[in-house]
Order: sequence, then structure tokens, then C-alpha cells
Amino acid sequence: MISEDDLIARFFAPIAGQGSLALRDDAALLAIGPDEELVVTTDALAAGVHFLPDDPPDSIARKALRVNLSDLAAKGAKPTGFLLSLALQKEWCEDWLRQFAYALGEDARCFSCPLLGGDTIRSPDALFISITALGTVPRGKMVRREGARAGDRIYVSGTIGDAAAGLMLRKNAWDRPLEPHARDFLIARYLHPQPRLALAPALRAHASAAMDMSDGLIGDLAKMLRVSGASARIEVPRIPFSEAARAIVAADPELRDHLLTGGDDYEIVCTVPPQESVRFEAAAKKAMIDVTAIGVVEMGSDPPCFLNRDGTRKDFARGSFSHF
Amino acid sequence: MISEDDLIARFFAPIAGQGSLALRDDAALLAIGPDEELVVTTDALAAGVHFLPDDPPDSIARKALRVNLSDLAAKGAKPTGFLLSLALQKEWCEDWLRQFAYALGEDARCFSCPLLGGDTIRSPDALFISITALGTVPRGKMVRREGARAGDRIYVSGTIGDAAAGLMLRKNAWDRPLEPHARDFLIARYLHPQPRLALAPALRAHASAAMDMSDGLIGDLAKMLRVSGASARIEVPRIPFSEAARAIVAADPELRDHLLTGGDDYEIVCTVPPQESVRFEAAAKKAMIDVTAIGVVEMGSDPPCFLNRDGTRKDFARGSFSHF
Repeated sequence: MISEDDLIARFFAPIAGQGSLALRDDAALLAIGPDEELVVTTDALAAGVHFLPDDPPDSIARKALRVNLSDLAAKGAKPTGFLLSLALQKEWCEDWLRQFAYALGEDARCFSCPLLGGDTIRSPDALFISITALGTVPRGKMVRREGARAGDRIYVSGTIGDAAAGLMLRKNAWDRPLEPHARDFLIARYLHPQPRLALAPALRAHASAAMDMSDGLIGDLAKMLRVSGASARIEVPRIPFSEAARAIVAADPELRDHLLTGGDDYEIVCTVPPQESVRFEAAAKKAMIDVTAIGVVEMGSDPPCFLNRDGTRKDFARGSFSHF
Repeated sequence: MISEDDLIARFFAPIAGQGSLALRDDAALLAIGPDEELVVTTDALAAGVHFLPDDPPDSIARKALRVNLSDLAAKGAKPTGFLLSLALQKEWCEDWLRQFAYALGEDARCFSCPLLGGDTIRSPDALFISITALGTVPRGKMVRREGARAGDRIYVSGTIGDAAAGLMLRKNAWDRPLEPHARDFLIARYLHPQPRLALAPALRAHASAAMDMSDGLIGDLAKMLRVSGASARIEVPRIPFSEAARAIVAADPELRDHLLTGGDDYEIVCTVPPQESVRFEAAAKKAMIDVTAIGVVEMGSDPPCFLNRDGTRKDFARGSFSHF
């Protein structure tokens, strides 16, 4: 088995060019004139891997666009537009496509990220979607993965693990009682990630590093620290859970690790120098995005250290979602 | 059945934004500073649809990049770089991926179009590739599909139908004798399209409209004229065939229409105002790209009229390759 990062490092980094940031970030960066840079990112989704084949077409459309917008948000970028590659199965029907396109159009308007172009082909089997999103940042202001420095505070936006819990519910892999509104909330968090574009200006102004979490907090945070050449101390009890996620963990405490390592959060993890943290929190509040400090960046190249409430060390059996 | 164009017009054009050119061209166009514009295009390929699952990995890589470079060439753009979405089957092996990435890197260098980023995921079934290529043009200089005007000369680059013949040979759907070098040439034309980037400056300087041909000359030319609101008169005997394609047609004259309507040429069809045609031909010659005048744009909205050597009208049963 090989991780996606190893696969990229071995096969694709050697052929990457200027602007690719050695394929170690979520986006490419191109100079476009004296004041601005172009941020370009691409994310692909396949039926049965990133969504369930019977997920509603409007949810699939929104997720496909939003996971890309989430990358732009984490890089501090403002969306310009997107291109869509869509491989439709033989059995596609107009009703499905109408709902898909309508929802995509709604999200494009809502997030000010218009459809610019694309390619629609027939898929030999599964539905496949690839979106490339473009955005801009003021020159030199893209927030990288690699900027975390010892002493920086580590923040996450929103709450963690809701989507992993929602997927579990969606698959009927949970047989204990749960309030209907908690169930609906968690499934909605799985189906409809919220790109934190409103946080982009605060990240540009105050963060030293940032990325969006697609493969689980524990693994994604470790990735960001690895490319930054840093370690960290994380206080696990500080990691924010929603009320609904807390209800799940209360009923089955063993699921806590699953929520921390499961994917599809599409929240932002970032590091902020201590002297900027008050201003960052104020800017996030103004943008109406909850952010929570969960730990501190430390020197060294050890994997991040996770601490329980009693100060003992916590290990995770499985770092993050892996495709390979 | 619905054509890709109808599908785009019905479902996606209503949600397209500024810069999308109403999804009626091969690329999107974004202003990036006072002097330049960004040309963005995306093309997707699926195993069993755009290439044979047992095509060599290096051929699949080259084709995936080159079909996008072909779009940039037709728009008169200079490549900036590309993003790759790759959905690998469960059974992918390192050897396959090494060859794929190596060939992609060679082509990226050869065409000065570096890899900028991407996403690698697991595919539930077939191999799927989507590439988004970025390029630049001087402001206002992108060559559109919609600029053809009555009186303009119609040119094609290279030779037509080689790839359609090559695919037929590759599928062993041809049982007559053929010189081995003709066979090799045609299969290579199917496997390795040649993006006509060297022609881009000549197109920018002299062409009124251009597009690359992916779905067959007859159908693609009709598309370009339709968005230009024009008709045309094409002299079929002028359409350039390679020696190898001529050998195929000599052995089986009925295949001629198949070569003219089959896809995968990735040559350029363009229109050039009469007063520019001498300069266009000289510029193409300097770029070492063969171009051939095959007809003239006419007023009206009739489909293009194709004429035989004796002046009688020729009809094609099937306009072009359709995915849907």
C-alpha cells in the first residue's frame, strides 16, 4: 500500500514545474500581473469513493464544487471561477442532470464562483467528476501548508468529525437511538461541506500556514506539520465537537477516534503566530466563523503529540483516510 | 439521444459565468492584468471511450496532455502549465504509473507546459483522466470559434483521418494488406496526436476563427460555422490525406467518409480572411506546419455544402463522433 502523498512524491513531483510548489500544497500559484497571483486547485470525486451512488444529484454537485472552494478558502483566495469535467454513466437521465446542474448553478452564484468551461464525456461505468477552481490572492499572500513555526497556535474552524458521523448514519452503520435533528444535522454535514471562504481574509492577514481537512484532522494536521518541518502538541479535549457528534461519542466512546481521523470535514486547520492570535480570533468572529485553538506548534520533526485531559499521551491507530 | 453540444446548451450554459464565452468555445478566457489574458481548457478521457484499456501507459499520458494542448494551440495560446486529475483502478501497478508519469514529464518539457498540481484518487472501475491546461494570449488576441465571416478561406493543418484509420487498425477491424510503415504511421497518429502549438502565432495574427478537431472534420467544421452564423462550401477532393490514409481509401473507397467523420485528428481547422491568406500560409510554412485550403465561408445558416470533384453535392450520413 502506498499513500497518496508518497505516490505524488515518487511519480509526479519529479515532473512538476514552477508554480506547482513541488506538489506539496493544495493549490498551484501563478503570477498574473504586478499585484495578483492566481491560485489553482483541482479535486476529483468518484461514485462509491467520495459519495454514495444514490446520494441526491444536488448534493453531489454541491460537494464537488465545495471541496474545491474549501481549498481556495484555506489558501486565502477569492474564487474566480471553475471548470467541470463530468463523466456520465450510460444510464444518465435528464432529471438527474437537471438537478445536478441547477444545484451547481445555485452554489456558483452563492459562492461567486461561476462555471467557466468543462468537458462532458460518457463514463464506461461510474460517475466521475473533476473540478478545477481558480482564485486570486494579492501577490505574496497565499497561505501555504509549509509556514508553521514553533510557538504558533493551532486553530480549527467549525466542528470536527460531523461528516464522518454523517457518513456512518447515511450507510446505516449505527443502530443506537439518536435525536432526529442530530441525525439530520450530521448527514447534512456529510452531504454539504461548508467552504470557509469568509475566513480567507483572516487567514491571509494572520495565519502562517493553513490547509483544509479532507482526510481527517489527525492525518491532515500531521501533513501540514511535516511539510513545515515542525511538530506540535495538541490537547485532544480542546478539539471542538458539535452537540450531535458529542451525542454519538457519549453513546459509543470508541467512535471518538473515528470522528477525529475520518474524512470529509472540509474545515480549516491553520497556525497563527502568538502575537497575531487575538487579531485572528477577532477577524474570524467578524466573519462569523467559529475557530478554536487546539494546541501549539513545537520544534522538531516528530509527529504531533496528542494529549489526553490527564496529560497522558494518546495514539491513533489510523492516521487518516487513504485511497490507496 | 442528445449531443454533447445540446447537453451543454440545455444544462450548463444557463449556469455559466463571465469568461465562459457561454460555453460555446473550447476554452474560457480571463483577464489577468493589462496586457494578457488567461486561456483555460479542460478535457477528460476515460478508458474504453477515449483510449483502449491496453494502450501503452506512455501513450495514454501523452494523449491526455496533448488533447488539451491542442485546444490551447487552436486558441492561439502559449501553454503555462496543467493540472491532472487521475482516477486509478484498484489494480494499478507501479510500473504502469512510472511509465505514465515519465511520458507526461517528457511531454511537459517538450511542450513547455509544466505540471502544476492535481488530484489522484482511486477509481471504482475504469481509469479516468482529466487535465486542465492554462495558457496565455496577448489581450484580445484569443482566436474564437465564432469569428468566421463570408469570404474567409477555410484551412486545415496536417492530414485528416489518420487517427480514425489508426484506431481501426489498432482494433484489428481491417483485414486487407497494408505496408507495415503505413500501419505504424496511422497507429502512431491515433496514439500520439500532435498539438499544433507552433501554429498559434500564425492563428493569432491571421485567423478569424479556429478550433481543434477532436470529433471529426465534417462535424467540427459544422460546429464552428454554426456558432459563427455562417455557411461554407468545401471541396472534398482538397481535404488532405496522408499517403497511408490514401492507401486505406484506395483499398476500400467506402472508408473515405469514415476518415472524414471519425474523431481524434487533433488538427486545426481555421478561417482566414482572403487578404490575410498569403501571410497566413507564409507564417505556417515558417512554423513548419502544413496547412491546406479546403473551401470558403459563405453567407447564411445552412450546414456547410460539400462538393465532389464533378461539382455534385456530397452528403455525410454521420456528422461526427458523439458520446451520448
